[in-house]
Amino acid sequence: MLVYLARWLILASVVGALAGLASAVLLLSLEWATDTRNAHRWLLWLLPLAGFAVGLIYHLLGKSVEGGNNLLIDEIHDPQRIVPKRMAPLILLGTVITHLFGGSAGREGTAVQMGGALADMVTRIGRLGPDERRILLMAGISAGFASVFGTPLAGAVFGLEVLAIGRLRYDAILPCFIAAIISDQVPALLGVHHTHYAIPLVPHFSIGIFAATLAAGIVFGLVGMVFAQATHGLSRLVKCLVKFPPLRPFVGGVAVLLLALLPGTDKYLGLGIPTIVEAFEKPLPLYDFAGKIVFTVVTLASGFKGGEVTPLFYIGATLGNALAQLLAMPIPVLAGLGFVAVFAGAANTPIASTIMAIELFGPEIGVLAGIACVVSYLFSGHTGIYHAQRIGHGKRGGKTDKTDSGIG
Amino acid sequence: MLVYLARWLILASVVGALAGLASAVLLLSLEWATDTRNAHRWLLWLLPLAGFAVGLIYHLLGKSVEGGNNLLIDEIHDPQRIVPKRMAPLILLGTVITHLFGGSAGREGTAVQMGGALADMVTRIGRLGPDERRILLMAGISAGFASVFGTPLAGAVFGLEVLAIGRLRYDAILPCFIAAIISDQVPALLGVHHTHYAIPLVPHFSIGIFAATLAAGIVFGLVGMVFAQATHGLSRLVKCLVKFPPLRPFVGGVAVLLLALLPGTDKYLGLGIPTIVEAFEKPLPLYDFAGKIVFTVVTLASGFKGGEVTPLFYIGATLGNALAQLLAMPIPVLAGLGFVAVFAGAANTPIASTIMAIELFGPEIGVLAGIACVVSYLFSGHTGIYHAQRIGHGKRGGKTDKTDSGIG
Repeated sequence: MLVYLARWLILASVVGALAGLASAVLLLSLEWATDTRNAHRWLLWLLPLAGFAVGLIYHLLGKSVEGGNNLLIDEIHDPQRIVPKRMAPLILLGTVITHLFGGSAGREGTAVQMGGALADMVTRIGRLGPDERRILLMAGISAGFASVFGTPLAGAVFGLEVLAIGRLRYDAILPCFIAAIISDQVPALLGVHHTHYAIPLVPHFSIGIFAATLAAGIVFGLVGMVFAQATHGLSRLVKCLVKFPPLRPFVGGVAVLLLALLPGTDKYLGLGIPTIVEAFEKPLPLYDFAGKIVFTVVTLASGFKGGEVTPLFYIGATLGNALAQLLAMPIPVLAGLGFVAVFAGAANTPIASTIMAIELFGPEIGVLAGIACVVSYLFSGHTGIYHAQRIGHGKRGGKTDKTDSGIG
Repeated sequence: MLVYLARWLILASVVGALAGLASAVLLLSLEWATDTRNAHRWLLWLLPLAGFAVGLIYHLLGKSVEGGNNLLIDEIHDPQRIVPKRMAPLILLGTVITHLFGGSAGREGTAVQMGGALADMVTRIGRLGPDERRILLMAGISAGFASVFGTPLAGAVFGLEVLAIGRLRYDAILPCFIAAIISDQVPALLGVHHTHYAIPLVPHFSIGIFAATLAAGIVFGLVGMVFAQATHGLSRLVKCLVKFPPLRPFVGGVAVLLLALLPGTDKYLGLGIPTIVEAFEKPLPLYDFAGKIVFTVVTLASGFKGGEVTPLFYIGATLGNALAQLLAMPIPVLAGLGFVAVFAGAANTPIASTIMAIELFGPEIGVLAGIACVVSYLFSGHTGIYHAQRIGHGKRGGKTDKTDSGIG
């Protein structure tokens, strides 16, 4: 067992260090891209061309890695071939272009794919067998997630939890924890810091707050499901209507550009961190979550790169903000609950999301976050943003006729 | 899904409220028993007779519930019959007697068994089917654990995690969370409060602290395994040597009494909360953990009642205290890590234990607790304090020739 520990300590630390470094580069690049776009608003006019560029790059060089996160999940369940090294630089480039020109996307997909690709590089160098490879890929996912959000324990559990709905296996637990914890150290060491979200006061537990959290959890789950299904649906539609792949993000870029001509929609572009922070501080328009859904679904379904999770945080925080106004609840509390719970529903990762709430907002929110994330998870259906995710067990227990099959 | 939510909200809330009430009664009774014993030290001389009484009560009335926690776990995996209602009063009585006369035992077994028995009472009244019964029993375990320790999220995950090694299913996630969260409210509402353990300062992550945590995690896991195997081994031996069951705890009581005649062993009797608190504050003798192991193994293996977890907290905290002295690390930090990690190894519940560390000691300890608990879990072998626990997956991944079989 000592040999096992030493071996995985080294392998997972290497993956963690590499993934952490990659996340630091990503975070710095996105900061630059966002600052540059804010300083030069005209860049948005080039979004369709930027989309065409991203599409062309993936069409010419990236067909083997287009699956992205789903490719990683598929490889873990059912190893077919190696994850091409090019996944890491391509997704980084695609994401930076997406954000520089104003696409509404996230970054966890990028971090996770870089982590996975780097993990598979370590697999090849270390000549690992298929069982060990599977585990190292999971560690790469954990490490990417942990370091891009600054949430080591949530990242560790995310890598274990994301592969299947309703089931969690522990055989990768040590590598996932080590890789996530090491990777989380790297951005901080390089002076890259994460946004701080503040929930100044969590009310004491009461029937009222319990009921409000349950009700909000239902809405969070339904919205998470709508987001996931809208993205998959529009993606299929775009593939059907536009046959030449590089043209898809071009068309998507045109659509985002037209949408952004509407007044007040500027804040739905890019990562949207300032609006997420605002959602913890003051009442926002009730429809902000819907605006962000439209912008993100169009951006991602048409082929831009980045990921879904930061937009889901945005959607959740602004939706929580709106629900707080409707339910007469404290705005920061419901913004924080929405932040984690819409993601919990859309990604089917209730335990990682609950832990994330504690890591980001403090332990006082833990119980409410647990309720919101679990209820959201139950109400988001047997689908999610990662269509390669398997169904381990039906969410309500008992039978599901799709057990252990893909959910695409 | 709304019907599902409403149904389980009611069922789990009822189980949570009942289990929380039972835990409050238990906590108050144990406070009384401990205070009384401290005020009347001569009660210890009656420990053998008290043991005979506990043994006789279980021999006459409790044969059907002697399995305790293992009976509950078995019923969840493989439902055979109902959990007798008498489990709750018998375990409460047995535990209070054990503590009143100085036996070294815990209380989570009692809380969990009361939670399970009350859950099965709700099952019968609500005429639930076998699938729903299984889930409500898990909610009862979660609720008992959550309310006796004041750790709602750790309790919720414990109920999901304890059934099998290396695997976690989500189909009971809503009932477990609801029951745990509701039950945790009850003792506080009744003015029953939990002990507070303080870790004033957690050092920043460094290679040194990482290495020390890994090394400590190995020791925590091995000690957890030794504790579990010693308890099972001595229990088999006692059953072999002493044929009349009520005599077993009598003999055990004599042994504990003789051990307690040695100077300075007083602190190994009972729950031992004052020593656990001290372990966070100042250097203690390096052998305290071993003393507590001996007293607890003799007490529990001979048939006294209570549970293993608070003694495991004691063993872990004092062992961490000793390791801190040897490794020149901060005493409160290693005491806190030992507190959760020996338990994580002995019960095979690394995620619940990590969450427990955050709930009890604050989020700063989270990453170190995660490492210590996962490493301890890996080093504690494919066995544990609950012999009914199944092996879902081997801890190191790959094959285990005992998959999906009992581990007794």
